[in-house]
Amino acid sequence: MPEIHATRRESLRAMLRADETDALLVTDLLNIRYLTGFTGSNAALLLHAGDEGRTVFCTDGRYTTQAEGEVPDLERVISRQSAAALLERGSERRKDYGRTGFESQHVSVEQYEAFAALADGVELRRLPGLVERLRLVKDETEIEALRQACAAADNALRDLIERGGIQPGRTEREVARDLENLMLDHGSSERSFESIVAAGANSAIPHHRPADVVLEAGDFLKLDFGATVDGYHSDMTRTLVLGEPADWQRELYDLVRRAQAAGREAVRPGVATADVDKAARQVIEDAGHGAGFSHGLGHGVGLEIHEAPSLAKTGDGTLSAGMAVTVEPGVYLAGRGGVRIEDTLVVRDDAPELLTLSSKELVVV
Amino acid sequence: MPEIHATRRESLRAMLRADETDALLVTDLLNIRYLTGFTGSNAALLLHAGDEGRTVFCTDGRYTTQAEGEVPDLERVISRQSAAALLERGSERRKDYGRTGFESQHVSVEQYEAFAALADGVELRRLPGLVERLRLVKDETEIEALRQACAAADNALRDLIERGGIQPGRTEREVARDLENLMLDHGSSERSFESIVAAGANSAIPHHRPADVVLEAGDFLKLDFGATVDGYHSDMTRTLVLGEPADWQRELYDLVRRAQAAGREAVRPGVATADVDKAARQVIEDAGHGAGFSHGLGHGVGLEIHEAPSLAKTGDGTLSAGMAVTVEPGVYLAGRGGVRIEDTLVVRDDAPELLTLSSKELVVV
Repeated sequence: MPEIHATRRESLRAMLRADETDALLVTDLLNIRYLTGFTGSNAALLLHAGDEGRTVFCTDGRYTTQAEGEVPDLERVISRQSAAALLERGSERRKDYGRTGFESQHVSVEQYEAFAALADGVELRRLPGLVERLRLVKDETEIEALRQACAAADNALRDLIERGGIQPGRTEREVARDLENLMLDHGSSERSFESIVAAGANSAIPHHRPADVVLEAGDFLKLDFGATVDGYHSDMTRTLVLGEPADWQRELYDLVRRAQAAGREAVRPGVATADVDKAARQVIEDAGHGAGFSHGLGHGVGLEIHEAPSLAKTGDGTLSAGMAVTVEPGVYLAGRGGVRIEDTLVVRDDAPELLTLSSKELVVV
Repeated sequence: MPEIHATRRESLRAMLRADETDALLVTDLLNIRYLTGFTGSNAALLLHAGDEGRTVFCTDGRYTTQAEGEVPDLERVISRQSAAALLERGSERRKDYGRTGFESQHVSVEQYEAFAALADGVELRRLPGLVERLRLVKDETEIEALRQACAAADNALRDLIERGGIQPGRTEREVARDLENLMLDHGSSERSFESIVAAGANSAIPHHRPADVVLEAGDFLKLDFGATVDGYHSDMTRTLVLGEPADWQRELYDLVRRAQAAGREAVRPGVATADVDKAARQVIEDAGHGAGFSHGLGHGVGLEIHEAPSLAKTGDGTLSAGMAVTVEPGVYLAGRGGVRIEDTLVVRDDAPELLTLSSKELVVV
């Protein structure tokens, strides 16, 4: 879909012109993928603020054929030193590239020194986070990829439960592998992060790594996992119970479920991210479990599993339609167990669009 | 094994003292893992050139318990802004940390600006690549992890062949998943990179991504894959034939096999990396296939799948005992097929130690 990439580049151009900058040297591979569709491991893009004709893409010889297919609509240069090659081009035509920005939040101090030595007659400007600012609001192509990634995770969880994959005697590690294989069966290209499968008291550890721990009747089982489609990541947590839940488990689950619903309901354009966090946190604090909710409420998802915006107490932004975020409150009782419930959703003008559709009723397996 | 990390820190101290630097702020997570054993996703280390007593480790609250277990032998500070917290510590005690180096090949321009604003009375010095220089030569703990990772890959390939996993009608993608699952069965924590499974004409693409392409009788099948154990990566390529090989396949295979043997034989301490590349390349050039060998001969492996040293035409280093490298010549005939054979080996005083033990006879399945 070259059109969508051209549209994104045009948006970036407008930002550059507003900054009175001639061009941006894009070196972050995810930003390059966003702007061009290129998925290889070495590339640079010199995007001219004026037009596509002076915009140049560079990758190395391993990717010549791939770049022809993925980036048919831009001039392509082949060089192993991709950023350096484009800076040399800029220096040769300094009239067009006299003020060139670079991604100073990605470029290392050593790289910058090398760039500065090459940028003969070109003023290099620190321009951090421009493409990330564009990536904050997803277009419908991106949302469709997120939707498919979330569906792969939903389908995997459904299959896992239906096939009896969650039962006493199995290990956390076995469950994690099954989930990850089922996501691949349902169209995921790879897991979006190392799955968290946490049984019993381990469910009270927010980021537990699956181990050879055997599931037992009466355990909480916390599953935090995701799929990847076209580079876009899904993120979902469900907490189940093996066998009949105890009263404390029902109460804890119900509390987190109410907090999560309150968080989701707060997800609207114009709402401060800190207020979304507060909406969910208040429910948990009112129940006297504030200390047990030891992390932020959620985060943006997209080409990265964790990206802006952050939904946390200390956040200072506001939501806009088209942002994709997680809402994932948790309460963790050390030594006993914990519950986290997490969805991925898209901010819409009215109610948010829920992408992770697995039931949030307390599932008893 | 805290002792091994203390030994590595002591080696780094000697480098800092030789540089007349008081301390090094280590922010790269792999370097921190190498120096401390910590495996979490947020950390910084302020290593004092004089002693362990003034060396401080920092991570955030998610990892308090994990850090107690993994880094029992250093003072630990808990802060979300790990590098900033340690720089503030340095500024408070500037007598001890007056000249503090930082990893300028990893620190971005924006991070550096933030560091500079915090480093009150502390001179920040660009010190790129110090820990990487240490990591070039592996200690026996690291070599054992590499050995286990290579064994997981060997065992997975053996199982795959024995179980009939490679046969006409199966797809590249199925074979890749089987290989990756079998490596997990044999102790890999995760694949060390996205596996390359390339059938038929696809085997002529050096970095082909597995697709829903069906294997056919007569195809070359190129498998490039690896396992991870304790964070250390293995890397191996084997090229098989489905059914009776044609003459051109036998000839091509034999050529690459001879080139690979010549490369391995050149792996000795004191030999220039460019000469190792040349030893293998000469065999291929003499056969008139020089243009078909379109990449370097190999690369270092360790905590990263690609790290120094590079074995390539343009390399300028020499090998030392304890380095771990791949030797992976290939010849690719566009539209027909290609052969690559790759081992991971350790440079030893006498002959190199071969870590990937799968047969390099032409395997016919």
